[in-house]
Amino acid sequence: MKLRLLLSLLALIVLEVYAQSDDEKQLRAIYDMALTNGKAYDWLNHLSNQIGGRLSGSVQAQQAVDYTKRQLDSIGLDRVWLQPVRVPKWVRGTPEFAYIETKPGITTNVPICALGGSVATPDVGLKANIVEVQGIEELATLGKEKLQGKIVFYNRPMDPTLINTFQAYSGCVDQRYSGAAEAGKYGAAGVIVRSMNLRLDDYPHAGAMSYGDTPEDQRIPAAAISTKAAELLSTTLKLNPDIKFYFKQNCKQLPDVESYNVIGEIRGSQFPNEIILVGGHLDSWDLGDGTHDDGAGVVQSMDVLRLIRANGYRPKRTLRVVLFMNEENGLRGGKKYAEVAKSKGETHVFALESDAGGFTPRGFSLDCSDENYAQVLGWKSLFEPYLIHMFVRNGSGADINPLKDENLVLAGLRPDSQRYFDHHHSENDTFEHVNKRELELGAATMASLVYLMDKYGTVRSDKVKG
Amino acid sequence: MKLRLLLSLLALIVLEVYAQSDDEKQLRAIYDMALTNGKAYDWLNHLSNQIGGRLSGSVQAQQAVDYTKRQLDSIGLDRVWLQPVRVPKWVRGTPEFAYIETKPGITTNVPICALGGSVATPDVGLKANIVEVQGIEELATLGKEKLQGKIVFYNRPMDPTLINTFQAYSGCVDQRYSGAAEAGKYGAAGVIVRSMNLRLDDYPHAGAMSYGDTPEDQRIPAAAISTKAAELLSTTLKLNPDIKFYFKQNCKQLPDVESYNVIGEIRGSQFPNEIILVGGHLDSWDLGDGTHDDGAGVVQSMDVLRLIRANGYRPKRTLRVVLFMNEENGLRGGKKYAEVAKSKGETHVFALESDAGGFTPRGFSLDCSDENYAQVLGWKSLFEPYLIHMFVRNGSGADINPLKDENLVLAGLRPDSQRYFDHHHSENDTFEHVNKRELELGAATMASLVYLMDKYGTVRSDKVKG
Repeated sequence: MKLRLLLSLLALIVLEVYAQSDDEKQLRAIYDMALTNGKAYDWLNHLSNQIGGRLSGSVQAQQAVDYTKRQLDSIGLDRVWLQPVRVPKWVRGTPEFAYIETKPGITTNVPICALGGSVATPDVGLKANIVEVQGIEELATLGKEKLQGKIVFYNRPMDPTLINTFQAYSGCVDQRYSGAAEAGKYGAAGVIVRSMNLRLDDYPHAGAMSYGDTPEDQRIPAAAISTKAAELLSTTLKLNPDIKFYFKQNCKQLPDVESYNVIGEIRGSQFPNEIILVGGHLDSWDLGDGTHDDGAGVVQSMDVLRLIRANGYRPKRTLRVVLFMNEENGLRGGKKYAEVAKSKGETHVFALESDAGGFTPRGFSLDCSDENYAQVLGWKSLFEPYLIHMFVRNGSGADINPLKDENLVLAGLRPDSQRYFDHHHSENDTFEHVNKRELELGAATMASLVYLMDKYGTVRSDKVKG
Repeated sequence: MKLRLLLSLLALIVLEVYAQSDDEKQLRAIYDMALTNGKAYDWLNHLSNQIGGRLSGSVQAQQAVDYTKRQLDSIGLDRVWLQPVRVPKWVRGTPEFAYIETKPGITTNVPICALGGSVATPDVGLKANIVEVQGIEELATLGKEKLQGKIVFYNRPMDPTLINTFQAYSGCVDQRYSGAAEAGKYGAAGVIVRSMNLRLDDYPHAGAMSYGDTPEDQRIPAAAISTKAAELLSTTLKLNPDIKFYFKQNCKQLPDVESYNVIGEIRGSQFPNEIILVGGHLDSWDLGDGTHDDGAGVVQSMDVLRLIRANGYRPKRTLRVVLFMNEENGLRGGKKYAEVAKSKGETHVFALESDAGGFTPRGFSLDCSDENYAQVLGWKSLFEPYLIHMFVRNGSGADINPLKDENLVLAGLRPDSQRYFDHHHSENDTFEHVNKRELELGAATMASLVYLMDKYGTVRSDKVKG
């Protein structure tokens, strides 16, 4: 009996070692293929340089739908289709224009851009005194008498001491998202928001804003100002609080239009009803070419389905790549996908999004149960040769979040974040700022986790089967 | 008795927790100061943009000596001095020129640069048939009859599947360093070496080569060719092995000149005779402005001495910053420093070099005893909030290696390596490719390890004291 036990244990250990080395080999094959024969960089080159910025509802967004569908059609998936989704169509109009007026006739031009969803200024532009605040909470202290008819200038910078720059972003973005709705309540005429950028430079950064339930006739225009111009404006205000600020923008919201999520899948050989999703978002802002946000995530997700078949691996579960439309200003693609999945009774076991730039991958964030987190941690040593060390909890991706369910493991790729906000939503988000190897390493890192999830299943789905 | 033991243990635990939280605070203060009040970026801006490439023996190298000494004089160290060192002076001369000649009169220009230390071609240039090889070992197979009078083209690329790009570099650099000396033995007329670059682009990458003991009159000229041109040349050769290659360069080796290591120190308050060294190298190649190699290491090292005094910390040991001259083509600065240290009987306990680029820091490589390695691993959790995970053995820095001694802990900062060889030794190593935060995080990471080494001492030096 003791001998049998010993032999069983020995057999288990041998199996374990064998499995481990099998996984090591598969990960090595995935990384090798990504680094020597990856498709992500060429696809991104096309999306960025041949198509460019892909604002929801734009011609470029449609070109991106057509292009990525064609590419997915060409890599031998079992099925590729378009999922219709109606999206908002906001257009920037002619280039915005702004200046600081220190005395009548003495002006300094400054770079601004309308925030996504903002209304236009009057045709002649808007000129008013300007009040600098460090955040929304200051408005109540200032009150209507100090804000009525003024332009509110939100100037709280991102905190440079936070190592994870996304945390610094979270700490500021309320100014951009809700600043106009809140300032409008005090009778402000418009708002100018310091760009969400840790660097001092001349690029204004776009991004979504919302008027909440503000009636249409009470909505005030909102624009982002570059970080260098924000510093200039702030210093000028300290010297003379009576200066005026002028800006003009003629952006507008048009009726919703039809667009698409682009979807492709490889049907699972053993558990076809268990779906593993990998994705990014096809739309971007219009100022740059959307390379890091989120062309990178799109092409990495597309390549995951190709890479996972390195060494002839045949997925047990259904692997689905979803290129979501309208993450930036509506999340309609993500919501539609979840709605359709629910109505069809589909079971998603794992969903992974890449939407934090195409920089060197550092790890994953995981939004899942303790058991599933422990399962992923058990694979940590497999990722070490690829310098993937970060396995943190909470946070995945905006597009996959509507799928959230206790049985589902949600995850986000976590690339190095230091450079991300130099580019994000600005004219500086362009192809020359992505490094081919870094992009490919990200795709391989995603494919590796997808492979492991496919091979072993998630803890919960195993229990369900058991 | 049991109670006393328990109480002692409890006291130890309390002390440990207290010490830990003290260290956590000090590291936080160091990172905060680097990210909000760092000097490294401004210093690097001057070195790169106001001075530029700093080849040993050049006017720019002397300007860098003067500038960094002035800056060290201004940050309140106890002592700053120049250590004389004679360095080789190799000059590139007029721009190199090269073409592929497919038929007489039908030529395609290609970007090359002379390798550091190479002799010139004849005044009219050198034109010959070209033989492609994948490495030095192929020469013996080809033999004199196939190589006599030919230009040998070393075209083994860096291996893209290696995650650590420095390993890929090590696997190729023999072609650059010894390629000419070896090909010369078979009567070759010259050598062209594929640039050490993982990317396909138009920049030729310089770097040191050596003729070993080849007599002067038998030395053949050597140049690097850009990776794109190497691909072009290789394809052209496959179509027609009879093509000719022409190149012209008039570089030369002048007599040695006087130069300096720049040194500054803070005298230790308790163990002034135990020296902790932090450094980088002041010289660079001449093609770019030497931002990543190694302006970054220079300014990070300079800032370490300033940062460590964040929160009023007073070093117990003597902290010394050493800016070495001539790492690139002679290592004379490193050798001289070690020689002087030995002759004075100085005791170095820890030496840390930053010479792998100013990218996001990932960790350290450590060249030390098992005990000292274990000591550093014990601090790993202190570094986790800053996403510093890599603590690998072997390798530190070229300049500090001559100090090697069993009592000394040698270390190198390990930044993310993916982009490094896009820039290294080429016209593409320029200031706009460094990110301020990444550079500052590197300085803070170095200062943190220096602080811990200073506070606790290295295992061996404690034993010596005990």
